[in-house]
Amino acid sequence: MINFDTNATTATCPPAIDAMCFVMKTCHGNPSSVHCMGKKARAYLEDARTSICGLLRINEKFGRLIFTSGATESNNMVITGIEKISPEGVRFVTTTIEHPSVYNTFLDIKRRRGRDSVKYIAIEEGTGNVSLKSLESLLYKNIGRIGLVSVILANHEIGTIQPVSQLSDICHKYGVPIHVDATQAVGKIDIDVEKMGVDYLSFSGHKFHGPPGVGGLYMRSRRNPPSQIKFGGDQEFLHRPGTQNLPAIVGMAAALEDMMTIRSRDVTSIRKYILSSLSLSLPIRLNGDPVHCLPGTLNLTLPGVDARSLVERLSKSGICISRGSACKAGSKDGSNVLRGIGLTSRQMDETIRISFGRYNTMNDAKRLVESIRKNTIGVTP
Amino acid sequence: MINFDTNATTATCPPAIDAMCFVMKTCHGNPSSVHCMGKKARAYLEDARTSICGLLRINEKFGRLIFTSGATESNNMVITGIEKISPEGVRFVTTTIEHPSVYNTFLDIKRRRGRDSVKYIAIEEGTGNVSLKSLESLLYKNIGRIGLVSVILANHEIGTIQPVSQLSDICHKYGVPIHVDATQAVGKIDIDVEKMGVDYLSFSGHKFHGPPGVGGLYMRSRRNPPSQIKFGGDQEFLHRPGTQNLPAIVGMAAALEDMMTIRSRDVTSIRKYILSSLSLSLPIRLNGDPVHCLPGTLNLTLPGVDARSLVERLSKSGICISRGSACKAGSKDGSNVLRGIGLTSRQMDETIRISFGRYNTMNDAKRLVESIRKNTIGVTP
Repeated sequence: MINFDTNATTATCPPAIDAMCFVMKTCHGNPSSVHCMGKKARAYLEDARTSICGLLRINEKFGRLIFTSGATESNNMVITGIEKISPEGVRFVTTTIEHPSVYNTFLDIKRRRGRDSVKYIAIEEGTGNVSLKSLESLLYKNIGRIGLVSVILANHEIGTIQPVSQLSDICHKYGVPIHVDATQAVGKIDIDVEKMGVDYLSFSGHKFHGPPGVGGLYMRSRRNPPSQIKFGGDQEFLHRPGTQNLPAIVGMAAALEDMMTIRSRDVTSIRKYILSSLSLSLPIRLNGDPVHCLPGTLNLTLPGVDARSLVERLSKSGICISRGSACKAGSKDGSNVLRGIGLTSRQMDETIRISFGRYNTMNDAKRLVESIRKNTIGVTP
Repeated sequence: MINFDTNATTATCPPAIDAMCFVMKTCHGNPSSVHCMGKKARAYLEDARTSICGLLRINEKFGRLIFTSGATESNNMVITGIEKISPEGVRFVTTTIEHPSVYNTFLDIKRRRGRDSVKYIAIEEGTGNVSLKSLESLLYKNIGRIGLVSVILANHEIGTIQPVSQLSDICHKYGVPIHVDATQAVGKIDIDVEKMGVDYLSFSGHKFHGPPGVGGLYMRSRRNPPSQIKFGGDQEFLHRPGTQNLPAIVGMAAALEDMMTIRSRDVTSIRKYILSSLSLSLPIRLNGDPVHCLPGTLNLTLPGVDARSLVERLSKSGICISRGSACKAGSKDGSNVLRGIGLTSRQMDETIRISFGRYNTMNDAKRLVESIRKNTIGVTP
């Protein structure tokens, strides 16, 4: 099978598997226990935390990295946690092109607090770039009434990367905290949390060749944290109860180190190859920003092509691509991201997502292009 | 190191580690993806679900097993999820001897809904048995106003097993759903979910030699589910968003099968040995029900002994015991369980928990008893 759907999940890399097995075989304590087995487990846990903080340039003197079960939980913790401590009348700012774990969390807030409680920053058609002017205008008009701004750093469907430092500057000018969902960014592009200036940042291990079921939430300040959304034990500085998933945490740290220190295959050349080869035989429309984007994400509208059946036919020949987020793959609603950048329903039905990473070869790309060509012969837009 | 703190967490068993490694090495899809890699992952996921349902006697025709990140999440999902859809004035019934993930979730409800919103079933002093009369009286007095009853099936500190079928019968007589936190019970005692008649049941993989970071929530009915407490993708029948932790789920299924099919070492004889040997040299008080209890849990008050320093001294010689729940090990508040069964502050400071399972040997038990004796010489109650 050839995997061109790595934005859905990635293969756990050998260093991560090795680290997990080592911990499972040699360390049988609970990091919260005070005895010697607990202390050993705690040491592994804190080593992993220090390592990830170093790689993401998190300064542990001021901020904190909390381990969670994944970015869905991290996103919910920030948004619902801040909403819980926000009095009536407080508003929240986000975009229409968020991942479901952010988008649907805000929809729930709207259901409970009313339509006006969530405001959406204008998005540039086609590229999905957020409008800085629109953000500034929203913050200016609602001065003193915004609880949180939440923006996806690198889009999971179209790959667009937002100008995060500028977004942070604008938010902080108005005294508003900013959260970024960095799930598709961590491990793929350089992340310097301190330079970005964000207040909260979410990520998931399984998007960068770490194991599933584990993720992180960075909090810039130790003061005024979001309210808890789950209750239980005293783990993770009282922010996230439940026994820590130690093997997965250690595996995630190993994967991130591997991604960020070992020079990986040049995915940009694969991107260029797929884009230029397909353009020769098909009238394609590239969605997302062509420059400020994830190197391993291509979102293409192929006029006249039924995307659902193309995905199925490719799958039959062992090539995996998708139509968008796996989290919504079974859903009949169209993608909020594609709608958000202005695609029509028809265009959405003609759109595929091709995503790839360090384990994809140029040979894979050639087979993908051939297979798409073969399955779109005679298509007229 | 000798592990007599297996109620905190257990060593992941070889079949679970093997299953996890196999899945991580050979299955790189997201179970939600519609292509061939996704379908393969989905097949592993549903095989694990079917296997666990079979072992716990869950009838999938009516009820559902939802995979979560662990029992803390499962407990929160039921309690907060039902509270979210309960109008003002609805009351909740629980006990004072719950795990923090239930106890503290109800404390949060009390903070928000007022003191009267949570009622506690009377507990028998010393044994921790719930009073069936007290439950019936609470339900009778608050007829039509109870949203949920939640009781821990096998206590994590004192090991007491509650008469769950009788509890279910009483609850259903009054039309009230019942949730049991079965975290310490699953894999250790026979569980027949259908016979028990409960509406919700929570468990965690890492308490029965599965990996950490994974658990389950059984829901008896597919109708009127609790409200979601996290939002995101469409996973787990829309109950629990976030990419499933496939390797851990498969590992948990392997561990449960291993626990329930392979005849395990007789922990009861270890229990008897420790109890009788310690009784010879120390005036001990056994907390919890002496008969209806987990075979691998011993909670002992040793008059005159400083439990904190005993745990530390044993740890120095490589023997791990605890004072109670690891989730609260760093906390200054005493245990709600020990307080709940009537221990004084002084008695709580003299209390230790010894917990063990299939990997503990009689030789381990002998070393433990020797070590406790050596470290309590000259103690006068």
